[in-house]
Amino acid sequence: MANAETNTIDKELCVNPKKFKSENEDSKRIENTVHQNLKDLSKFKLKRVINNNAQKKLLCVEGTFTGYDGSALVLLEKKAFVEDNLDEHLFNDSSILSKEFENDLYGNYNCFPLVKYNSIKTTIIHPATEKHIAKFENQPVHIVDETAELYKEVTLTHLNKEQFSLQWVYNILEHKAEQERIVFEDLDPITGFVLIPDLKWDGSLETLYLLAIPMQRGIKSIRDLNDLHLPLLKNIRDSGTKAISTKYGVPTSQLRIYFHYQPSFYHLHIHFTYLKYDAPGIFTEKAHLLSTVINNIELMGDYYSKATLSFAVKESDTLFAKYQEHGVLPVKSAEVK
Amino acid sequence: MANAETNTIDKELCVNPKKFKSENEDSKRIENTVHQNLKDLSKFKLKRVINNNAQKKLLCVEGTFTGYDGSALVLLEKKAFVEDNLDEHLFNDSSILSKEFENDLYGNYNCFPLVKYNSIKTTIIHPATEKHIAKFENQPVHIVDETAELYKEVTLTHLNKEQFSLQWVYNILEHKAEQERIVFEDLDPITGFVLIPDLKWDGSLETLYLLAIPMQRGIKSIRDLNDLHLPLLKNIRDSGTKAISTKYGVPTSQLRIYFHYQPSFYHLHIHFTYLKYDAPGIFTEKAHLLSTVINNIELMGDYYSKATLSFAVKESDTLFAKYQEHGVLPVKSAEVK
Repeated sequence: MANAETNTIDKELCVNPKKFKSENEDSKRIENTVHQNLKDLSKFKLKRVINNNAQKKLLCVEGTFTGYDGSALVLLEKKAFVEDNLDEHLFNDSSILSKEFENDLYGNYNCFPLVKYNSIKTTIIHPATEKHIAKFENQPVHIVDETAELYKEVTLTHLNKEQFSLQWVYNILEHKAEQERIVFEDLDPITGFVLIPDLKWDGSLETLYLLAIPMQRGIKSIRDLNDLHLPLLKNIRDSGTKAISTKYGVPTSQLRIYFHYQPSFYHLHIHFTYLKYDAPGIFTEKAHLLSTVINNIELMGDYYSKATLSFAVKESDTLFAKYQEHGVLPVKSAEVK
Repeated sequence: MANAETNTIDKELCVNPKKFKSENEDSKRIENTVHQNLKDLSKFKLKRVINNNAQKKLLCVEGTFTGYDGSALVLLEKKAFVEDNLDEHLFNDSSILSKEFENDLYGNYNCFPLVKYNSIKTTIIHPATEKHIAKFENQPVHIVDETAELYKEVTLTHLNKEQFSLQWVYNILEHKAEQERIVFEDLDPITGFVLIPDLKWDGSLETLYLLAIPMQRGIKSIRDLNDLHLPLLKNIRDSGTKAISTKYGVPTSQLRIYFHYQPSFYHLHIHFTYLKYDAPGIFTEKAHLLSTVINNIELMGDYYSKATLSFAVKESDTLFAKYQEHGVLPVKSAEVK
């Protein structure tokens, strides 16, 4: 069963906590943060809703706190159910039901549990910078149908300029960092790879998430793959699934094994997640199954240098601007209301 | 912004309400349903948790009600936030905060809002049949890597036997049903199609969801597609996006356009959803972008009769049993704990 404490806001913050370091080193201002004495939400003055995720039951609002300088972000997220003590917390005479309708076997109700068992996870960021707001703001996204030509002219040019450093990847491959986290390793320079838990993984099997990182350098993404890479890809598939089955007891048929396109960093890597886990980035416009990639190359050795690959890009992404300049995407849209 | 009333349980029930018709026509037993007099949850005796979705904050439990015959299902789902009256409902001195920790700009709290503004959507099904329980129970799923041979030997044989009636599809194409719901129509027998809102769509633009259904009969799924179908596929892409842009103002670049494999019915159909909407079935092991399908056929006319297509199948699905008999899938697993 799912770990009920797993929480979307935490994951957002945990992906890269360094992103969220204070940009204001003035200790006076930090002392003037609201966190010292906040007892309730009465001092919060709402400016606007910046995100409302009906699926995750997550609301992000921007505003201010009376008596304090600067913007504030309040992130509210309903909590997952905890399976312990359900009788005490929920199935009792305090949980009043109000019937909405009934029809045959079905009845729809509102249930009003005790306040103490129904709290909302609340994260307050104050003072919040523009970057914090942009990070949590609901951004319009667009599909780019990237032909082989557009890849060369726009994407490749852009990523050659803007790519983040891959030093942290090389540190893992060279045992200069995270060595104790390595789950499996094959040192062959051509077909070898490291298998390591993803930073987002909390360790529960329900949310199993590992990354395979090839020893070979210079393969930026699936765009660079061809028939020469089949031994590498098949080794990652076979040795990766075997290591996960041995260490975690999860059979190959219950794993989702895939690439991201665009990836977040341009040293080839493969995601292994538990099939039932709705991991971030498993949508069809982002994730490419390893089985499909191997099969495409077997059908056509140069598939990935010819294919049109579609991916989604946020309007705030610098790649969006490049495609816009190229006339491929529309001007920034007003959000659909 | 999302329609905060959109609700997972409702969607589950709305996909095909006929599935959930009472199987017991004995009116006496229905009169003995709990729905007449239920004031709170004290009479519910928990037997087991059958599903706990930490992302959607949804809990399904099986049990009984003291004094009543038969099993009961209780489905509890935390509600999405409603953006109206946030000051009255949330940002006030009743919303007590309890600090978990603070660190620099960040503070994590529990917020305890008033009971009346923090109810849980509750659906009670009583008496519940085995089918109800199987429908909501968390089922192990497995990936099948379906080669062209396995398609012919297992999947095709199975679906020729087990396929649901397509009469409802033909009724739409022949204007015998849902005629007033048609958004766009092209009557050409080879390249024509009907564009119609999906049954799950509640009409809000944030969850936009339409289906394109070709006039041509006999194309079961993407497996049957080849270069002869390119004019049909391109017409659906071009006329479908134009109709949606005209009627709903959503530009093509903000649409996710895809097939399901396996589909829920075997008359070819294409899904159009709003790109930012986390619609059901958009995962990489289920959804195939129309742009990718067109490009694959352009690269290789017989791509879909040669390719290995991977899809996920639940252990409760009859297709799982067929693949298991064939030795392709493992015996039913105990759920990963």
